[in-house]
Amino acid sequence: MFTGLSAFPLTPMNEQGVDENAFTRLVEQLATAHVDSIGALGSTGGYAYLSRAERTRVAQLAVEAAGNVPVMVSIGSLRTRDVLLLAEEAQKVGVKALLLPPVSYQKLCAEDVFSLYETVSANVSVPLCVYDNPGTTHFEFTDELHGRIAELAHVSSIKIPGVPEAPHLAKERVERLRGLIPSHVTIGVSGDVFAAVGMNAGCEAWYSVIGGLFPNTALAITRAALSGDAHEATRLAERLKPLWALFRQFGGSFRVVATAAELRGFTQHPSLPLPLRTISGEGRKQIAAVIDALELS
Amino acid sequence: MFTGLSAFPLTPMNEQGVDENAFTRLVEQLATAHVDSIGALGSTGGYAYLSRAERTRVAQLAVEAAGNVPVMVSIGSLRTRDVLLLAEEAQKVGVKALLLPPVSYQKLCAEDVFSLYETVSANVSVPLCVYDNPGTTHFEFTDELHGRIAELAHVSSIKIPGVPEAPHLAKERVERLRGLIPSHVTIGVSGDVFAAVGMNAGCEAWYSVIGGLFPNTALAITRAALSGDAHEATRLAERLKPLWALFRQFGGSFRVVATAAELRGFTQHPSLPLPLRTISGEGRKQIAAVIDALELS
Repeated sequence: MFTGLSAFPLTPMNEQGVDENAFTRLVEQLATAHVDSIGALGSTGGYAYLSRAERTRVAQLAVEAAGNVPVMVSIGSLRTRDVLLLAEEAQKVGVKALLLPPVSYQKLCAEDVFSLYETVSANVSVPLCVYDNPGTTHFEFTDELHGRIAELAHVSSIKIPGVPEAPHLAKERVERLRGLIPSHVTIGVSGDVFAAVGMNAGCEAWYSVIGGLFPNTALAITRAALSGDAHEATRLAERLKPLWALFRQFGGSFRVVATAAELRGFTQHPSLPLPLRTISGEGRKQIAAVIDALELS
Repeated sequence: MFTGLSAFPLTPMNEQGVDENAFTRLVEQLATAHVDSIGALGSTGGYAYLSRAERTRVAQLAVEAAGNVPVMVSIGSLRTRDVLLLAEEAQKVGVKALLLPPVSYQKLCAEDVFSLYETVSANVSVPLCVYDNPGTTHFEFTDELHGRIAELAHVSSIKIPGVPEAPHLAKERVERLRGLIPSHVTIGVSGDVFAAVGMNAGCEAWYSVIGGLFPNTALAITRAALSGDAHEATRLAERLKPLWALFRQFGGSFRVVATAAELRGFTQHPSLPLPLRTISGEGRKQIAAVIDALELS
């Protein structure tokens, strides 16, 4: 399940709780589009903002709505103790893989992070995906640490935060990491802006934010890149430049995609937990114009 | 209560829970030393690693052990909803002030943070201290935002993350902020390394990590600086250079102070929640040597 398009849906939520119906519809739409896997409760899925009970409930809804598509959920938490409990509950409701970010408040060192993965690896029975995104976890992996973690039982994929923009540098970056990890461990790119470059450079998967809302658009890029048509993947990704520009303008993909979901009627406003808010005013109009013009689907 | 030494004790905890007896003893020691206030459940107090029930319990223990010394606790949480609940529970157990960090996972913008403080300000009855530390919250305040927040009801102090090392630049920095906030709002320095420079530059308070474990050492610096004896404050702080060097070496004060607490028998090992750990091996020996040589108390 660690190849192709892994689509990361939002979890619509506000001060009243999780909008379970809207979430279920988002997941059903991904199953209908035949994405390769679903990454529920990722950063985009707001796992960090939910209690353990809420996360288990959302994981269960995802599994029920996903049909034959395998579901992965994040078990990220500040404490190893809570990570282990989340892993247990997620496996009980039928998730097929676990995504583990080294979430931090006080800065973590490499040995803390290795021991976290080691402990979790020894206590789960489904595959693990390593989550590498300093933008949310504030932890920087070295490739050497990736190499050590990738040797652990159950570790099956590494979600990397992006690649250099230039294709030959992207290729070098992916090959350097590949040289340090076992061959059964896949590398998946995240940071949607880097998706085509990353897959063209050898990443086997795309852990995708837009794929969680616009799976057909993301699938077209994924299928082109993974079938070897780098030119077509690049063309399709470059068509989306106005969307990438919005991600830069609004500090990342998260709020833009949450705003797009409200605009398209997938979710009801407010769909984010305070103090987070979707984008209002002129920015919202810009987003509406871009998602319409690009015919995202 | 927002002047002088505000001492931030550790909350000893491990996989079995909070060591309530050790915590109580740490707080009693601060009361005995006559610190000006106690900042329980700050970043040093590990608030981020505890459940709401555990935080309320620790706040209660702090109030009970502090005697006449006023207690402040952090109400930081990713969601406004949880911040409000924490504020309510902390006030019920008798804390005298609330420390509010803009904790983030997805990046916050200035308007998110302003609305967080605005909402909390409208829903509390005790003073608020603004917590500015990008190292843990990953949010960067501008002075303009500080100015807007400082106008809100109940806001009584700003905990700043440090000052420039050069005394004239530190003075400029403190005066610039002072010019933007009401006169009843104090400025307190944090980052122990900057304490003497900060107070000599006009900060009225020191929100202190070492003060939570070695209150007499921290009080001597505070009393010298706030009585106008900048020279003596500087001398006392410079004596602690080997300790500041350890903070730099081990990525901040947190693990060094937690390790020192174990070494001095204030807490039992392990005293941090996994995946965090105190420092072992050669580093631990270095810390033992420094705290003994400096006669911290």
